Amino acid sequence: MREGLCHSDGTMTDRSDFLEAAGAILGPRGFTRDAELMAPWLTDWRGRFTGRALALASPATTEEVSALVRLCAAHRVPIVPQGGNSGMCGGATPDDTGEAILLSLRRMDAIRSLDASERKVVCEAGVILQSLHDAAAREGVRFPLTLGGKGSATVGGLIATNAGGTQVLRHGSMRAQVLGLEAVLADGSVFSSLTPLKKDNRGFDLKQLLIGSEGTLGIVTAATLRLVPAVAVRAVLWAGIASLEAARALLLHCEDAAGEALEGFEVLSQETLGDVISHLPSARPPLGDAHPWHALIELVADRASAERLPELAETLLTGALERGLLEDATIAANETQAEQFWALRDAIAPAERARGPAVQHDISVAVERMPSFVEEAVPLVERSWPGTHAVAFGHLGDGNVHFHVIAPPGADPLAWQAGDGKKISAQVYELVTRWGGSISAEHGIGQLKREEFARLGDPVALAMLRAVKQALDPQSLLNPGKLVPLAPMHDNP
Amino acid sequence: MREGLCHSDGTMTDRSDFLEAAGAILGPRGFTRDAELMAPWLTDWRGRFTGRALALASPATTEEVSALVRLCAAHRVPIVPQGGNSGMCGGATPDDTGEAILLSLRRMDAIRSLDASERKVVCEAGVILQSLHDAAAREGVRFPLTLGGKGSATVGGLIATNAGGTQVLRHGSMRAQVLGLEAVLADGSVFSSLTPLKKDNRGFDLKQLLIGSEGTLGIVTAATLRLVPAVAVRAVLWAGIASLEAARALLLHCEDAAGEALEGFEVLSQETLGDVISHLPSARPPLGDAHPWHALIELVADRASAERLPELAETLLTGALERGLLEDATIAANETQAEQFWALRDAIAPAERARGPAVQHDISVAVERMPSFVEEAVPLVERSWPGTHAVAFGHLGDGNVHFHVIAPPGADPLAWQAGDGKKISAQVYELVTRWGGSISAEHGIGQLKREEFARLGDPVALAMLRAVKQALDPQSLLNPGKLVPLAPMHDNP
Repeated sequence: MREGLCHSDGTMTDRSDFLEAAGAILGPRGFTRDAELMAPWLTDWRGRFTGRALALASPATTEEVSALVRLCAAHRVPIVPQGGNSGMCGGATPDDTGEAILLSLRRMDAIRSLDASERKVVCEAGVILQSLHDAAAREGVRFPLTLGGKGSATVGGLIATNAGGTQVLRHGSMRAQVLGLEAVLADGSVFSSLTPLKKDNRGFDLKQLLIGSEGTLGIVTAATLRLVPAVAVRAVLWAGIASLEAARALLLHCEDAAGEALEGFEVLSQETLGDVISHLPSARPPLGDAHPWHALIELVADRASAERLPELAETLLTGALERGLLEDATIAANETQAEQFWALRDAIAPAERARGPAVQHDISVAVERMPSFVEEAVPLVERSWPGTHAVAFGHLGDGNVHFHVIAPPGADPLAWQAGDGKKISAQVYELVTRWGGSISAEHGIGQLKREEFARLGDPVALAMLRAVKQALDPQSLLNPGKLVPLAPMHDNP
Repeated sequence: MREGLCHSDGTMTDRSDFLEAAGAILGPRGFTRDAELMAPWLTDWRGRFTGRALALASPATTEEVSALVRLCAAHRVPIVPQGGNSGMCGGATPDDTGEAILLSLRRMDAIRSLDASERKVVCEAGVILQSLHDAAAREGVRFPLTLGGKGSATVGGLIATNAGGTQVLRHGSMRAQVLGLEAVLADGSVFSSLTPLKKDNRGFDLKQLLIGSEGTLGIVTAATLRLVPAVAVRAVLWAGIASLEAARALLLHCEDAAGEALEGFEVLSQETLGDVISHLPSARPPLGDAHPWHALIELVADRASAERLPELAETLLTGALERGLLEDATIAANETQAEQFWALRDAIAPAERARGPAVQHDISVAVERMPSFVEEAVPLVERSWPGTHAVAFGHLGDGNVHFHVIAPPGADPLAWQAGDGKKISAQVYELVTRWGGSISAEHGIGQLKREEFARLGDPVALAMLRAVKQALDPQSLLNPGKLVPLAPMHDNP
């Protein structure tokens, strides 16, 4: 009996022809239907989404990706591209129809070239972020984007989701690192702009469309990325601050005083710091007294300006004290203490998790509005949902705060998250939308936030997204069901 | 007798209804068909293109633009948006059918808000660049993009063409300055993202589509732009260099040594310098001896780092001398001398014009390939066209060189430009395309380069441009005939 693929319009395609042809293109190492081999990639790393796939395709070259996509287009087989499978929104997990192939880019992991003096690297989509960091470090330069999942996240996935991280303040998100791009489009054609031109005004910039498109417009196969000088020395500062408003003023002061040396500016409240200290047995608060808010500030310098950094850090703090922008501050005396300061920041998420089940929101508003947003949102949520505890911390310099709401003591985790938790999220997203902010600052939309995006997104922007998607992927084969409900009929069932 | 609009499909629309409704939307100050009032805007400033228009519309608000575009969409009246009418490629000049309305944004010239501490300004599309500079300066900050046409160029036009200028090396082109955007789309709907979010991952970044789209996808009505600290002091250096290759090495040295202080790096040959000196009676060469190439380097500092700049400039030059990157160098002793150095650079274009008729090319290749490109292109062109003289100068740091080819002595200007000149341009564009470069680094495509773009552009990129255009402007009413021949049938007549 031959297997068949049912399309939504009722027609049926024979898929044994497709499978045979795909296997011929990719060879045994590049194509499998073995359930055991496929299983690890059919559930996202947080275990929130599980899907099924027709097959797992692992092409080794751009030409193989192109040939495969051409074949999929002819047979109308949907494609779910996947990098490290460490996204936050289920954007790389297929649906449960089993109609799509899972297209892993992990075998395409070559660094094609790295030129330290020209400060750029050409690498394939499957290169893991940590490998890129290592390769850059070996040549005395650095790739200026990092995040928690660096051991699994791939260059292709980082581009498809326009990933952020802890260095956005100075270096920008992934979009700012992409100098050139190669991608396979829905018809199998290859868009290539790997040779970076600093100036090129032949129409609107097509690579910008692919960055952040979550695999819905094309499959990134390679990129040219920028590199920056290696960090020679850093100064890590901890400041106690009277309010978030003061923290914002302190940030502006740091930008004025330190300019490009300012690489990180993270904020947390006294209460959050308390949670962290309780959670980490050996941790001590950096400052003697309590302060309503705390800021962790990192300044870095390359070799050329290393000598000047300690003085810069001192001047910065003295100026801030004189202007009344902080209550107390200290500079890490050595690299060990600097690591201890960062360990406090990195322990916020586990410390909050230890307090109980929570719903988490990766949201942003305009940088200067973040203090007033937090001041409104925290009591509003806590008042609306008695017993909950709202926590805001994170990248004040990017207007991006991780906003966690912890369940009332004793709540059943699963029931609370599916019930009140969901309603709380809806409230938070409505609030941030009213403030002109984003319901997804860093993590993307994927399938996790697709419905909320459809509900709360600007209708004009949604119509533009749909029109561009329809234009570039008329059969809707690229990562269907992700990012935005594309057919308007889905909005009005 | 009622007037009629003929469509390409043979149907006819009554346009008196349209004109009456448009007049009602815009009022007498905002709508005219007076030939004398329209005339100045129907020819581009260089006098290369002249068109006709049904009327000149000058809306005063985004709402008026929206209502007008909605009306145009209903009556299928094409729209040619125009800012300062100082573009280089005829992108704001209507065709000669007289069917389109000319939509001037010049009345929308309000600076809605300017926040020096938050470093951003919200301004309407018609704000003239010089006015923006002045407004920023009054608040002690600066808008970091400038160019020759700053007295006429508008914010909307700068965004629509992704304008460059002399500060791209450090600050990037217009794309890098746009934090938020408001635009009217082809159906009259208003896309608005004026509240800048530093992090926002709700799908691909739609505003990137409008930047550089030359009015073919939407009409920019307002923008939020970034500001930077004012320049407190600058150091202007002049260096004599053995080769363009050495100039490239010197540029990398400057980037290492000066980092963000490096704001300009312009190159010219000894021969070009000679032309300039002959052209400017009072000018003197900055260095005593002749050198094959010269570089004009500008370092700037804001108040916070002003003190350090003179030492930085000295260290930079000492280091470059030690490494053999330059043959001789001098630092402008004062602001007068700094102006004299820049006057030499600014006189290149008039000096070359004085030598005779020329064809000019605004091209780019990858920054590191520019030296070898110039070394190949100059003798190739001069050999192919005996008696011509090829000159390359400009923004080495951006990989963008202005490549001028001067006619043989005694050539008839018009006949030569239309004949050999055109063939030379085709050759230059073919060459730069083979080098993976761009036939338009800064100026855009407009109508001037549309056919060459269609001939030499990557077919995959052209297909993407066409698909997006068709999706967002299905009636092809926005700036028809600009940027790219959109209907494939135009390619194969």
